Amino acid sequence: MSQSSDLKTEISVLQYNSDGLIPAVAQQHDTGEVLMMAWMNAKSIQETLNTGRVCYWSRSRQKYWRKGEESGQIQTLKAMRFDCDNDTILLMVDQIGPACHTGRKTCFYKLVQDQKVIIDSEPLIDPKTLYGK
Amino acid sequence: MSQSSDLKTEISVLQYNSDGLIPAVAQQHDTGEVLMMAWMNAKSIQETLNTGRVCYWSRSRQKYWRKGEESGQIQTLKAMRFDCDNDTILLMVDQIGPACHTGRKTCFYKLVQDQKVIIDSEPLIDPKTLYGK
Repeated sequence: MSQSSDLKTEISVLQYNSDGLIPAVAQQHDTGEVLMMAWMNAKSIQETLNTGRVCYWSRSRQKYWRKGEESGQIQTLKAMRFDCDNDTILLMVDQIGPACHTGRKTCFYKLVQDQKVIIDSEPLIDPKTLYGK
Repeated sequence: MSQSSDLKTEISVLQYNSDGLIPAVAQQHDTGEVLMMAWMNAKSIQETLNTGRVCYWSRSRQKYWRKGEESGQIQTLKAMRFDCDNDTILLMVDQIGPACHTGRKTCFYKLVQDQKVIIDSEPLIDPKTLYGK
């Protein structure tokens, strides 16, 4: 429990892929529900720690993605963890409303059951409302 | 809650990377603890579903990795979920003993605290014992 090392050093030695990205898993801090997986780079990690609000790197839009900037469904950082290999981040967050762009709390709503995949949760909010379309 | 589709089709349309791999997050089914993140390919997904024992693809060893094959610390599959974008898998598992090669229950034992990273859990088992070295 005693060992500790400098944060900037630890961020610099994370195992980023060839695009400078590392996967980040977001978990609701109090319920333990796994909400989503997205990607971060060194700057979005630092911004997230500085602001207390989760900032990812959007691979599809090739820009910083401050979770909730469009939908208002922001993620407040409760804790950040790195894994043994320094190649994955675990974000303990407080998710306001749904994490998923479909309006569901979690993105992991497709459940393998027998030889089918079923959808076992419904949107909390109509995505049209979330994104004002 | 009604929609469903064929499992083989769903596995075939998962968003594998250029190496044919997709990230899989393993969560202890009863405690909610996030244990690790590793990679799967279509065959390891199918094997995991067929056997009920989690099989990853080891990028470092470039071979199938039946979790626990060396350490005995196997993962029994309780449920498998896909996310909205079909680019991440969530495995609800029953982890026998530690998931981490360091002998810790979870791989996410490095906690960011102030401007440091601290290790906030100790090994359950000496890794030397786990791997008989």
